[in-house]
Amino acid sequence: MSGLDTQLTPLRFLDRAAEVHPEAIGIVDGDRRLTNTEFAEAAQQLAGALRDWGVSPGDRVAYLAANRAELLIAHYGVPLAGGVLVAINTRLSPDEVAYICGHSGSSLLLGDADLLDALGDVELPVREVISLDDIDAFTARGGDGFIPWEVADETATITINYTSGTTGRPKGVMYTHRGAYLNALSEVIHQGFDHSTRYLWTLPMFHCNGWCTTWAVTAVSGRHVCLPAVRGAEIWRLIDTEGIDHMCGAPTVLSTLASAPEAHQLDWPLTVVTAGAPPSPTVVGQIRALGATLVHVYGLTETYGPYSICEPQDGWDELSSDELDVVMARQGVGMVTADPLRVVRSEPAADGSLVDVAPDGVEMGEIVMRGNCVMKGYFDDERSTAEAFAGGWFHSGDLGVMLPDGYVKLLDRAKHVVISGGENISTIEVEQALASHPAVADVVVIGVADDKWGERPKAFVVLGEGVEVEPDELTAHVKTLIASFKAPRDIEFTDAIPRTSTGKVRKNELRDAERKSASH
Amino acid sequence: MSGLDTQLTPLRFLDRAAEVHPEAIGIVDGDRRLTNTEFAEAAQQLAGALRDWGVSPGDRVAYLAANRAELLIAHYGVPLAGGVLVAINTRLSPDEVAYICGHSGSSLLLGDADLLDALGDVELPVREVISLDDIDAFTARGGDGFIPWEVADETATITINYTSGTTGRPKGVMYTHRGAYLNALSEVIHQGFDHSTRYLWTLPMFHCNGWCTTWAVTAVSGRHVCLPAVRGAEIWRLIDTEGIDHMCGAPTVLSTLASAPEAHQLDWPLTVVTAGAPPSPTVVGQIRALGATLVHVYGLTETYGPYSICEPQDGWDELSSDELDVVMARQGVGMVTADPLRVVRSEPAADGSLVDVAPDGVEMGEIVMRGNCVMKGYFDDERSTAEAFAGGWFHSGDLGVMLPDGYVKLLDRAKHVVISGGENISTIEVEQALASHPAVADVVVIGVADDKWGERPKAFVVLGEGVEVEPDELTAHVKTLIASFKAPRDIEFTDAIPRTSTGKVRKNELRDAERKSASH
Repeated sequence: MSGLDTQLTPLRFLDRAAEVHPEAIGIVDGDRRLTNTEFAEAAQQLAGALRDWGVSPGDRVAYLAANRAELLIAHYGVPLAGGVLVAINTRLSPDEVAYICGHSGSSLLLGDADLLDALGDVELPVREVISLDDIDAFTARGGDGFIPWEVADETATITINYTSGTTGRPKGVMYTHRGAYLNALSEVIHQGFDHSTRYLWTLPMFHCNGWCTTWAVTAVSGRHVCLPAVRGAEIWRLIDTEGIDHMCGAPTVLSTLASAPEAHQLDWPLTVVTAGAPPSPTVVGQIRALGATLVHVYGLTETYGPYSICEPQDGWDELSSDELDVVMARQGVGMVTADPLRVVRSEPAADGSLVDVAPDGVEMGEIVMRGNCVMKGYFDDERSTAEAFAGGWFHSGDLGVMLPDGYVKLLDRAKHVVISGGENISTIEVEQALASHPAVADVVVIGVADDKWGERPKAFVVLGEGVEVEPDELTAHVKTLIASFKAPRDIEFTDAIPRTSTGKVRKNELRDAERKSASH
Repeated sequence: MSGLDTQLTPLRFLDRAAEVHPEAIGIVDGDRRLTNTEFAEAAQQLAGALRDWGVSPGDRVAYLAANRAELLIAHYGVPLAGGVLVAINTRLSPDEVAYICGHSGSSLLLGDADLLDALGDVELPVREVISLDDIDAFTARGGDGFIPWEVADETATITINYTSGTTGRPKGVMYTHRGAYLNALSEVIHQGFDHSTRYLWTLPMFHCNGWCTTWAVTAVSGRHVCLPAVRGAEIWRLIDTEGIDHMCGAPTVLSTLASAPEAHQLDWPLTVVTAGAPPSPTVVGQIRALGATLVHVYGLTETYGPYSICEPQDGWDELSSDELDVVMARQGVGMVTADPLRVVRSEPAADGSLVDVAPDGVEMGEIVMRGNCVMKGYFDDERSTAEAFAGGWFHSGDLGVMLPDGYVKLLDRAKHVVISGGENISTIEVEQALASHPAVADVVVIGVADDKWGERPKAFVVLGEGVEVEPDELTAHVKTLIASFKAPRDIEFTDAIPRTSTGKVRKNELRDAERKSASH
């Protein structure tokens, strides 16, 4: 690198926002409205206070907070101090929070008073815990010093995000300043952010640093509008009063948006970006009916959130609504700052290199990614890092196919595929078929042991309120949509689907329960 | 840098365009329409042919061509082969072309047949000259091999662009893959390019690689529409028939656009980006009257073209047209991938660091820049490179002031300032005052020796057709707008202003003529 190149860092984004649009509102949080100048000053004060407290370059600082101004400020203030931000999922158990504090070696934990209270008397392996109620007193010790918005090495770690895997201990995914910067620029370009953007925080900021939109919105001097909890009424109130034109979220957020009593036709363009699980064509249709534009992206914690986008093609506007729902539900192609996605066979070539599946939409393989939009590695876990990057590409654990048009379609998590009579059955495909029946409010499909076929799909279905339907009718409906062998052997009606704090279905829990009941 | 980071290169942009929108038209050149697939294949074929011909990594390949498909293809094909593109200004003299071929050490020159013919029998220090009429035969030798769209080192040189300075030999400005990539992303974000973009090539591609829009338009799979020569009728024909929504150019391009008989109210949004010299408020007003959005940027060959943008502020839409013209004529703030601009005093601090002028809009200093949007250095000219980067910042040689709102305003090239009685007079300020008089069609102001004041401004004025006016009336008009001491001592009417091939006024020529006539 030439000596005069500036190291890439998203810190520059807040520097620029405060320089170019100092009086523009950068953050709305309840009744508080912070200008970009106030945003930048708060980050400087936090950084100064952290240094005064004893944070040295590379030290981890943990946050346990809802979507609020302080957590946005931390995305700049912690790295500005040279620290590494560890934004912890607020829905984790006290033990899990303690584990993450310990594994990351965080010396300091800052958090919302109620979230800290809820930790009870769990032992937190940090030097100090500070309530965000007392943040003003803490930052006051920062003094008036100014820290340049620069880093000495763009490959330094900026944050560690712990995976919310449904099995095993969470792993600490390291993001770099360079990766955060480049991913944020992809978000700007693909989501179409600019200075007029009013971004609603329906996505948790602790989730992949809000898919890097904590940085992307500020890169173009846009406006963050905080939302502490995903409630339909509050989302619609903020859309209407704050002029929201962008938001992101898992398909459950889309459902909340579409099914709220306050839902109404939109008065201005609203872009809703979704990922986390493939949205069902039904939800896709509902969101579009409101007048919103849906953008479908795909990624993992290990890829800074979104890595690929289902980029619309010329001619898609001539498709029928149903056809459009289907093509838009795919995971698509790498974003502009990402490398291409590949779908590869489980067996590498003789020389160890990965072998692509046929681009026929049929041959299933693992989705792999690499480059600037992929993590540096797992913190303090060289073995997992080496495993994840076997063959020089990051292995997502997600199974998919490559379509003839170069778009990737996710079929299932590797561990959630049902292998029935030697055929792979994507549980997602079965779930989407069931979800398209009007009686079905929620659904999950898992594989259960089957004497004849090895495994067979089983569905857990939540029906809409006051609706009744026979399992046979649902099975028949499914068979009109997908191959008969993919239809569930059993359908069990239930009141609720068990989910993790980030909305992932606890399929393992369901599988374990099935195994236990089968063995009795 | 972590081993898994992908090196930044704009080659990825064409790779992605061909992957994501293979059948979309990427280039329109007269009757030819190339899909992105054809664009990418042509770049691959060119790269293969160049390697076969003998181009090794780092070798320079010169082009002398108008704005046409082959020159766009060269922006990808030459670096794909590992070569360095030297796109030569087509308006240079045979001797200048020969000098650039020799200084850059280009082994091969490809060019338009008529431009090569016009070189006459000048000796070209290259191994071979190939007419683009014969490009198909040349690329046929490339075979069917595929070269990955990757580079081993993002700080490798991708192009060398020779300055069009008004004094001395041109210098070879080296761009890197990293810089080209990041500058292109700034163009995408600030110009608002996306897949629907129809970009008209009113700017020469040889000029800073078309301000990196050769790469930026393709980064979002947009469409290049070639324009071999800037003619008002053809510009308007292409706007109307090709649905042009973006173009760039020096203020003379704006004048051509506005004054063409075909000029009419626009039917869809058109963004016109200008730089090269500060546009006069008069031209700014004319362009806006057509319904176009004007974006004003500033930069030099050494900064990959645009480095800063006069980014609109909230509230500017409430300004009067005259007020808006004035604020929009400023050079503004660093783009998103650039560092901030500084305006510094000529005397550094005792420790050698640069000292900012007061942000008062009054104290004049030199505009300096640095970082990823500034060249790697001058090719084969360490001394000039070291001089240009004195104090760790690139010295533009441009004089300006820092306004209280953080926006930079260019006053003059350092060598064009008139120092009269110890006061700095910006010749641009005087030119703009004269240009605002309805009788004035074109104007240039230089400094001439003055016994009493040291220097005084002298104006050369081209009057509109059939218009007559007395010098005294113009002087009186100027004094209503700017300080009396800045008014020109002499006003000389002339038929045309001498300009360089890129539209810069040959002020040195005028000054030399003045000196000679004064000594007689």
